[in-house]
Amino acid sequence: MAGGTGTRFWPHSRRRLPKQLLRITGPRTLLQETVDRLRGIVPPGQILVVTHRDHVAEVRRQLPQLPAANVLVEPIGRNTAPCLAFAALTLAERAPNATFVSLPADHAIADPRRFRATLTEAFGWAARERAPVTIGIVPTGPETGYGYIRLGEPLGRHARRVRAFVEKPPLAQARRFVAAREYLWNSGMFVWRVDVVLALLEKHLPALMATLRQAMRHTGRRRAAAIARAYRRLMPVSIDYGIMEKAARVVVVRGDFGWSDVGSWAALADLERGLGGGSRAPVVAVDAARYVVFSPERLVALVGVDDVIVVDAPDALLICRRDRAQDVRRVVEELQRRHLDGYL
Amino acid sequence: MAGGTGTRFWPHSRRRLPKQLLRITGPRTLLQETVDRLRGIVPPGQILVVTHRDHVAEVRRQLPQLPAANVLVEPIGRNTAPCLAFAALTLAERAPNATFVSLPADHAIADPRRFRATLTEAFGWAARERAPVTIGIVPTGPETGYGYIRLGEPLGRHARRVRAFVEKPPLAQARRFVAAREYLWNSGMFVWRVDVVLALLEKHLPALMATLRQAMRHTGRRRAAAIARAYRRLMPVSIDYGIMEKAARVVVVRGDFGWSDVGSWAALADLERGLGGGSRAPVVAVDAARYVVFSPERLVALVGVDDVIVVDAPDALLICRRDRAQDVRRVVEELQRRHLDGYL
Repeated sequence: MAGGTGTRFWPHSRRRLPKQLLRITGPRTLLQETVDRLRGIVPPGQILVVTHRDHVAEVRRQLPQLPAANVLVEPIGRNTAPCLAFAALTLAERAPNATFVSLPADHAIADPRRFRATLTEAFGWAARERAPVTIGIVPTGPETGYGYIRLGEPLGRHARRVRAFVEKPPLAQARRFVAAREYLWNSGMFVWRVDVVLALLEKHLPALMATLRQAMRHTGRRRAAAIARAYRRLMPVSIDYGIMEKAARVVVVRGDFGWSDVGSWAALADLERGLGGGSRAPVVAVDAARYVVFSPERLVALVGVDDVIVVDAPDALLICRRDRAQDVRRVVEELQRRHLDGYL
Repeated sequence: MAGGTGTRFWPHSRRRLPKQLLRITGPRTLLQETVDRLRGIVPPGQILVVTHRDHVAEVRRQLPQLPAANVLVEPIGRNTAPCLAFAALTLAERAPNATFVSLPADHAIADPRRFRATLTEAFGWAARERAPVTIGIVPTGPETGYGYIRLGEPLGRHARRVRAFVEKPPLAQARRFVAAREYLWNSGMFVWRVDVVLALLEKHLPALMATLRQAMRHTGRRRAAAIARAYRRLMPVSIDYGIMEKAARVVVVRGDFGWSDVGSWAALADLERGLGGGSRAPVVAVDAARYVVFSPERLVALVGVDDVIVVDAPDALLICRRDRAQDVRRVVEELQRRHLDGYL
């Protein structure tokens, strides 16, 4: 799922270069890292990428090992459920008996080896149980930016039944969740058989599926036009809200591999890495603390300022209080309002 | 007096390009503005510039209208008194009966016309009284970064005798000075006859004068080498400390023409102008107040930060709390310590 068009990584993320296509955590882009870490589990020929029309060329450039036909094109973003349905219907044509993992292309994972072990276990449960399997992350703190999974009946050493999906909680509630040890973070990574996910989609999102199935009747070039027309009629809906919260018998496999959804520049402070990996310019701090600096090329000097995020890009510069990183999107809104299109 | 090597305008001021050679307040450099505003009062052929050896080429480039022989070269900075003495001894050779004004080359003046009127009046007093005349600035607030002049007996509408020079006061004292209306800011601009200043220098700084006079006996190329040797033996001393505070019968002419010594990036906020004049890139402020941004080319976005100074240069970036602008020099010290010579 590489359809994001987020604005929270401005000034590096732009219309033509959203977060998943950026080198945020190292020398490879988040999309490339997402594909890289499937090595040994899913061969490139079996990886589908769903992305926005505007980003197809860049996705292909970043992933030359994927067959061109494996890049599925959305003409317009409609959140994650249509993206999943489009991919599942495509798999139904190509590999109807497959079990697959659906992954956001813009997350960071510190330990790919442990990730692969967790993923392998999730594949096992998805095949055996014929149930949707979600990967739940062991919380490292009372995060309010993530959804939580309440754990149910144990199934194995790392697997439990899901009792409930809980939306992003306020801080006090997040603290109780973490203390209770009966909650995991909802990573948005799901493993399921093709027939299982199609059944869930048909049951809970029948209009979406009817619209997409009709478009998929076309083949070749006519399909792209039909998909484009279909997407315009779809309502945006997420996988979580559209099907997971309504599904019975969901399995969760516990994962502990240094995961982050890299939700904003502030998240990168925790990752302790920077834009472009090691290519950072020097920082000179005079009475400055708890700063987060992402400057690939230019020296940054801080005097008497605490808790700031500084992000340097070739044509623009961001200075943001650390606890306001979510509001970088308001800069983008202001740029739109002032028609400063060159910076979008 | 264009000998400054200050560091408070880093990252724009560098070893090779100190403040007076920068476009800080408009499209002309501070040095060029200093010369420009003498138009109609002092012809270019009668303007001497004293500067550091490293900056001679740039000074000549910026002031092509000055004869080459009017750029006096200091091999090393020794504060303002040696600079004044060197200029006065040079004038004694070329125009011994002259009355001249000594001006720092790195100040800003908003209203050059009123400045010229004040200067003309000061020239009159200097010639008539055969006394040193200083230009005192009507305070616009209780500044603690300036020295003050305590006023004495009235001489004319804008002229008074100087009762005392007062060093930079603490805030409470500065407030009393401003409220009392009997104090002006010491601008460091002095008008005097050549014979008057030479007599003052001989009286209060005889060693300095003996050393310089000996070097001035040489002519042509040998003089430069002799001056270089002489400067190495000189003690640094300011005009204020070395002669003005000791002089009797000093006259002060009141000036009110929008003056600033442009002591730091913070001072530019009051000037309400920016680096390079109108060539500033857009600023996008989201919940940000009282910021000072000097970015000639790149857009600057601020989110949730108040009271910051942001200065953008091609290879470096400064973010400084507004009340810490004096500490920019500590960045330069740190760069020296870390041998980051490319940024000095």
